[in-house]
Amino acid sequence: MRVDGRKNNELRQIKFTRNYTKHSLGSVLVEFGDTKVLVCANFENTIPKWMDKDSTEGWLTAEYSLLPTSTETRCQRERTKLSGRTQEIQRLIGRSLRACLNLEKIQGKTFIIDADVLQADGGTRTASICGAYVALKDMVEKLLSEKIIEENPIIEAIGAISAGIVNDEVMVDLCYQEDSNAQVDSNIVLTSSGKIIEFQTTAEGLPFNKAQMDEIFTLAKNSINEIIKMY
Amino acid sequence: MRVDGRKNNELRQIKFTRNYTKHSLGSVLVEFGDTKVLVCANFENTIPKWMDKDSTEGWLTAEYSLLPTSTETRCQRERTKLSGRTQEIQRLIGRSLRACLNLEKIQGKTFIIDADVLQADGGTRTASICGAYVALKDMVEKLLSEKIIEENPIIEAIGAISAGIVNDEVMVDLCYQEDSNAQVDSNIVLTSSGKIIEFQTTAEGLPFNKAQMDEIFTLAKNSINEIIKMY
Amino acid sequence: MRVDGRKNNELRQIKFTRNYTKHSLGSVLVEFGDTKVLVCANFENTIPKWMDKDSTEGWLTAEYSLLPTSTETRCQRERTKLSGRTQEIQRLIGRSLRACLNLEKIQGKTFIIDADVLQADGGTRTASICGAYVALKDMVEKLLSEKIIEENPIIEAIGAISAGIVNDEVMVDLCYQEDSNAQVDSNIVLTSSGKIIEFQTTAEGLPFNKAQMDEIFTLAKNSINEIIKMY
Amino acid sequence: MRVDGRKNNELRQIKFTRNYTKHSLGSVLVEFGDTKVLVCANFENTIPKWMDKDSTEGWLTAEYSLLPTSTETRCQRERTKLSGRTQEIQRLIGRSLRACLNLEKIQGKTFIIDADVLQADGGTRTASICGAYVALKDMVEKLLSEKIIEENPIIEAIGAISAGIVNDEVMVDLCYQEDSNAQVDSNIVLTSSGKIIEFQTTAEGLPFNKAQMDEIFTLAKNSINEIIKMY
Amino acid sequence: MRVDGRKNNELRQIKFTRNYTKHSLGSVLVEFGDTKVLVCANFENTIPKWMDKDSTEGWLTAEYSLLPTSTETRCQRERTKLSGRTQEIQRLIGRSLRACLNLEKIQGKTFIIDADVLQADGGTRTASICGAYVALKDMVEKLLSEKIIEENPIIEAIGAISAGIVNDEVMVDLCYQEDSNAQVDSNIVLTSSGKIIEFQTTAEGLPFNKAQMDEIFTLAKNSINEIIKMY
Amino acid sequence: MRVDGRKNNELRQIKFTRNYTKHSLGSVLVEFGDTKVLVCANFENTIPKWMDKDSTEGWLTAEYSLLPTSTETRCQRERTKLSGRTQEIQRLIGRSLRACLNLEKIQGKTFIIDADVLQADGGTRTASICGAYVALKDMVEKLLSEKIIEENPIIEAIGAISAGIVNDEVMVDLCYQEDSNAQVDSNIVLTSSGKIIEFQTTAEGLPFNKAQMDEIFTLAKNSINEIIKMY
Repeated sequence: MRVDGRKNNELRQIKFTRNYTKHSLGSVLVEFGDTKVLVCANFENTIPKWMDKDSTEGWLTAEYSLLPTSTETRCQRERTKLSGRTQEIQRLIGRSLRACLNLEKIQGKTFIIDADVLQADGGTRTASICGAYVALKDMVEKLLSEKIIEENPIIEAIGAISAGIVNDEVMVDLCYQEDSNAQVDSNIVLTSSGKIIEFQTTAEGLPFNKAQMDEIFTLAKNSINEIIKMY
Repeated sequence: MRVDGRKNNELRQIKFTRNYTKHSLGSVLVEFGDTKVLVCANFENTIPKWMDKDSTEGWLTAEYSLLPTSTETRCQRERTKLSGRTQEIQRLIGRSLRACLNLEKIQGKTFIIDADVLQADGGTRTASICGAYVALKDMVEKLLSEKIIEENPIIEAIGAISAGIVNDEVMVDLCYQEDSNAQVDSNIVLTSSGKIIEFQTTAEGLPFNKAQMDEIFTLAKNSINEIIKMY
Repeated sequence: MRVDGRKNNELRQIKFTRNYTKHSLGSVLVEFGDTKVLVCANFENTIPKWMDKDSTEGWLTAEYSLLPTSTETRCQRERTKLSGRTQEIQRLIGRSLRACLNLEKIQGKTFIIDADVLQADGGTRTASICGAYVALKDMVEKLLSEKIIEENPIIEAIGAISAGIVNDEVMVDLCYQEDSNAQVDSNIVLTSSGKIIEFQTTAEGLPFNKAQMDEIFTLAKNSINEIIKMY
Repeated sequence: MRVDGRKNNELRQIKFTRNYTKHSLGSVLVEFGDTKVLVCANFENTIPKWMDKDSTEGWLTAEYSLLPTSTETRCQRERTKLSGRTQEIQRLIGRSLRACLNLEKIQGKTFIIDADVLQADGGTRTASICGAYVALKDMVEKLLSEKIIEENPIIEAIGAISAGIVNDEVMVDLCYQEDSNAQVDSNIVLTSSGKIIEFQTTAEGLPFNKAQMDEIFTLAKNSINEIIKMY
Repeated sequence: MRVDGRKNNELRQIKFTRNYTKHSLGSVLVEFGDTKVLVCANFENTIPKWMDKDSTEGWLTAEYSLLPTSTETRCQRERTKLSGRTQEIQRLIGRSLRACLNLEKIQGKTFIIDADVLQADGGTRTASICGAYVALKDMVEKLLSEKIIEENPIIEAIGAISAGIVNDEVMVDLCYQEDSNAQVDSNIVLTSSGKIIEFQTTAEGLPFNKAQMDEIFTLAKNSINEIIKMY
Repeated sequence: MRVDGRKNNELRQIKFTRNYTKHSLGSVLVEFGDTKVLVCANFENTIPKWMDKDSTEGWLTAEYSLLPTSTETRCQRERTKLSGRTQEIQRLIGRSLRACLNLEKIQGKTFIIDADVLQADGGTRTASICGAYVALKDMVEKLLSEKIIEENPIIEAIGAISAGIVNDEVMVDLCYQEDSNAQVDSNIVLTSSGKIIEFQTTAEGLPFNKAQMDEIFTLAKNSINEIIKMY
C-alpha cells in the first residue's frame, strides 16, 4: 500500500483548469494531486539568434521555475544563476514539446512555454509537460482561428508521467514522499500512439535490472494513455 | 466615468483567499480586480548577516516577482539581476510591514514575505502589501498557538492603495490602463488608525499642486479603511 | 537646537562650484555642508534601446555612486551588482530631471547625469538633484551656443531638499547624524513655481500624522525657493 | 556501413593512458577514436556545505569542460555561466560515479572528478565516465596504500557508452558525424554485472518504439562489457 | 618640443592636497598636470580570507577606479565586472605599496588604498602610487600617535612615474595626447634610494632596443627623485 | 646549484609537438620541463566590436586558462569571473603576438590564440607565448597556401622566457619551486633580432638594483635566441 493509499499503477487526481490567467494565449493550471503548476503558452514573431535567419523552421522554448514558497521548505529564487536541475527540466520540457510539433509550420515564430510551479509535491516536470501540451493546443487553436498560422503544427498529442521503484515496488506518479525515498527515478514522455519521445531512468541507490526497467515502461505507458484522454 | 465604470473613489472588487498553498504558514491569494498576487509568509530562525548577532530585534524581509506571463506582454524572468523597479517594490513592502511589527518580539527570527504576481492589472505593490499583512497575521497566529513566539508582534493593522491623477481627476486603485495614462502616480500605506507609514507621489508628466496631493491623501485614507475591514 | 546649531528651517552652507572638471559639458561640485557631490552632464547622439527608434523624444538617464571613501565607514564598491538603494536614487534623479525637460526638444539624444559622492554627510540624493540641474543648465547653454540643439529644452528650474522628523521636531536638510536618528525621512523635489515633482515620505520608526506631513511640505518648499535662487 | 567503416555493434579504438599528468592522484587520457578527454581524480578533506556536518557519508562531485579548441568550430569558454548542456553532463558524471561508491567509506571527504575534453568527436560524456572510473580507481589505490582511507569504497566497476538510431539503424559509440544525424540519441551507464545505473534515450526527430529501445540496450550492454575488460 | 612645451625630462606641475576628505585616515588629492586622483588610505582589523589566520603579517590591498566623467569621452562604470586594465592597475598599486611596508608590523590588519580618478590626462596609475604613498604615510602617523600600531611599518619612501618613446624621443610623465601616440609605454616604481620595485615597458608599435630602455630608466629615476622631495 | 641541477643560464628541456589536435589550424603542445601548454590558433572573419568597421587592420586576441588539475593543488575553474592574474596573462600574450604581426595584412580577420595549461611548473605565460608563435606560424602557412590571406603578416619571430633572482642569483626559466621563492620575477619577450617587445620585472621581496636588471636582460636574451632556433 502506498503512502496515500493508491495502488502502484494508480494516478493521483489530475485536473486541467484552462484559461487560468488572461494575458496568455494558452494558460492552464495543471494539478497532479497536490502538485500545481501554472503553464502558459505565448509566441513571438522572431526566432533565436543561433538559428539561420532564413530557416524554414520555427522554434519552441521552455522556462520552468519553482515559486520559492512552492516547496516544503522555502527555496531560494534563482535570481543570479540557474541551478543544473532547473536547466535540465527546461531542456526536457522544450525537447518534449518540440517532438510533437512540425516546426516548419511555425516558420519565423518562437513558441514560449512558461511552467511556474505554485505548489510542489513530486512530478512537477511531467505535470509541466502535460500542462504545456494543453496550453500549446489552446494557443494553436487561437492562432489558427485568427489565421496567424495556416496549418496545425501539432503532429500528435503527448503525455508524460514519473515512475520509479520504491520499497522494491515499481509504481507511477510518485508524490514527494515517495520520490524522496525512491531507489529508481524515471521520467517518461510518450505520444498518444505509444511512441517514445524521452525515457530517462536513474538509480538513486543500488543499480537495477532490465526487467524492472520494462515494468516501469509498461506502467508509464498505461498512465499516459489515461492522461491523454483527459485533455 | 472611469474605463471600467467605477467612481473616482471606488475600489475594484477585492478578495483575500487564505491558505491558498500548503507549504507556507501564511498563504493568501489577494485579488484587486484582475490583479492577482500570491503572498506567502514564512520564517527562519536566523537574522541577516549585517545585523549584530546579539541584537534584541528580529527582521522582516520581502521578495517580489512578476511571473513572466503575468503581464500584458510577456516579461523576462529576472534570472541574472533584479531591475530597479523590482528592488524598489521589495524595499517598500519590507519597510511597510516592518512598520507594523515590534521587532523585539521576534528576536532571532527573520520573517520572509514572498509576493508573486500571477496576473498584473495595476496596483501590484499595494495589493502585495495588503496580502502580506494578511499572510503575516495568519503566520503570527500559528506561531503563537504553537508557542514559537510568546507575544503578538503586530502593533496595528496596515493597508495600502494606489491613487493618482488621470485626465485631471484624482482617483484611487488605478487599473493598468489608468496607470499607464496617469499624470501623477501615488502609493500610500497607512495604519488602521490613519497614521502614515509611506506616502510616495510622483509626477509622470507635468508637476502638480499641493491641493491635489491632499485630495489623493483623503481618497486613499478612506479606501484603506474599507480594505482593512475586509481582513 | 540641532546638532550643528541650526534652526529647524535652516539650510547648511550650500555651494555650487561650476566647471569643476574639464571633460564634461556641465560639471559642478555641489556642497551642502560636508556633503560633497561631483555632478557632471554629458550627452550621446543615441536613445536607449527600449525606445522606439522613430520616437520624437530624447531621454535623460542618471547614474549615482558613492566613492567607497565617501562614507563614515568605508563602503564596498558596487562592482558586481547595484544595491537597491543605489538604484532607487538613480531612478529618482533621472525622473526628477526629466520632469523639467521637454524631451521633444532633444530628439535623438540621451542626456547623461553622473552624480559621484566624494563625501557623504546626509542628503546626497537631493544635493545630487540640485547639482544635476545646474550641470544640465550649463550643458544646455553650450549645446545651444554650438547649435547642437535649437531650442532650450528646460521648462522650469527645479530644486530638492531632504526633510524629516527628529526628536519629534520637523526640520529640513538633515545631516548624517540627524538622518540616522530620524523618525520620518522625506525627500521633496519641486519646481521654481512650487509645483510638486516628487514627494516621498517614510516612517522609519512610528507612523506619523497628516499635520506633520504638511509641515514637512511647507519647510521644504521654502528651502527649495532659497536654493533655486543660488543657481 | 557506417561513415568510418565500422559495424553497428563495433566500438572505435579505445585507449586509456594512465598517469598522464603529475599533480593529480588519478590522471587518465581516455580516447574513443578521435574523442580525447583528460580525466583526473583528486580529493579534499571537506564535504559540501549542503551536507550535514556529521554525515556518515562523503561525496563525489564532477566538473566537465570542453576546451574551446576541442570542437569542430571553436566554442566559447564558459567563463560567466555554464550552459545547460555542461550542467547536465556534470550531473550525469557525478551521479554515475557515486553509484559505484560506498560513500560511507569516504566519510568526511569529497572526491573531485575533472573531465576536460581536449578533442571532441562524439561520445565525450560517456568517455568521461569511463575515464573517471579509471582515474577514481587509481586514486583509490593510492589512498589505500597511503592509509588515507581504510577500506576500498568501490562497489563494482562501471562503464558507459553512447548509442542511437542513425539512418534507421541502431548502433553504438556514435562519432560526431553520426551523432549530428541521429534520430535517437542514448547514453547508457551500466555496472560490470549488467545492472542499470542510468539509461537516457531521446528522440531527436520522430518518436521511436519499444523494440528499438530494447535493441539499443542490448548493444550497449555488450559494448560496456568490452570496455570494462580494458581497464 | 612636447605638446605642452615641456622638455623631455620635465615633469608636469605636481601637487599633493592632504586631508582632502574627512572620513579617511589618509586622504590626498594628487595632481600631475590635469590628471587628478583622490587617493585615500583606511584600514580594517582583519586579514584576507586566503591568508593563514595565524600569519605574522598583515596586508595591503588597493582599488582603482575611473569616474565615468574623468575621461575625454565618458567611460562606462564597471558595475558588473572589472576590465583587465583596471585589475592590472589595482594589482600594480597594491604590489608597489606592499614593497615599502614591513607587513609584520601591521599584523592582523589590512590597509586599504582607494584611488579614484576624478580627471584623467595620462599617468593615472603612477600618480595613484605617489598619492597612495602620501596617504599611507599620513595614516601611519595617525595610527602611531593613537598607538593603534606600535612601530612604523614604512621601510622607505617610494615614487612612480610614466615614461615612454614618442616621436622617437624618450620622455617622462606623458600626458594623454603623448601617451596615445607613444611607441613605447613604461611605468617605473622606485624607492628613494633608487632601488627597483617595478619596471614595466611595452612596445605599442615597433620593438625597441636596450639603449632606449636604459635611457627610460635614467630619466624616470631622476624624476622620481624630484617627486619624492615634494612629499 | 639549482633545485633541478641546472646552471643559472640553462633552459629546461623544451619541446614543441605540432598538430597536436585536429580541429585547429595551428595546434602545438609546448613543454618547458614539466610545464605543458596546449596552444591553438584559429581565426574568424570578423573584427572586434570596438574596432572601426572600416579599419584597414585585423586583430589578434588571446585566451589563457589553467586546467583545474594543472596546478600542484587543484585550482578553481574560472566560471563566473576571471582573476586579475588570468586577465594580465591574456593581455600580455595578445600584446606580444600582435607585436610580431602586420595587422594590415589580416584586415577583417581576428586571429584567436587559446593557451590551455595542462600541467603547470612555472613559466606558463612565457611558454604560452612561444607556443602561440609556433601555432600562429602554422596557421599562417595554411592560410597562405589556401589563399585565405595573400601576404605573410608575420614581421619577425618572437620568443619569451621568465627570469628572476633566487637566493641572490640571477637565473632564467624558473621552475615552480624557484618561482615561489624568487625575490625578483621577470618576464621578457624579444624578437629574433633582439628587440624588446615587453620587459616586466617586479620585486617580490626587497627592491633590487639596475645592475641586476641588466643581468636579467642579458640571460633572457641569450635564452630566447636558443628557443627561437628550435621553432
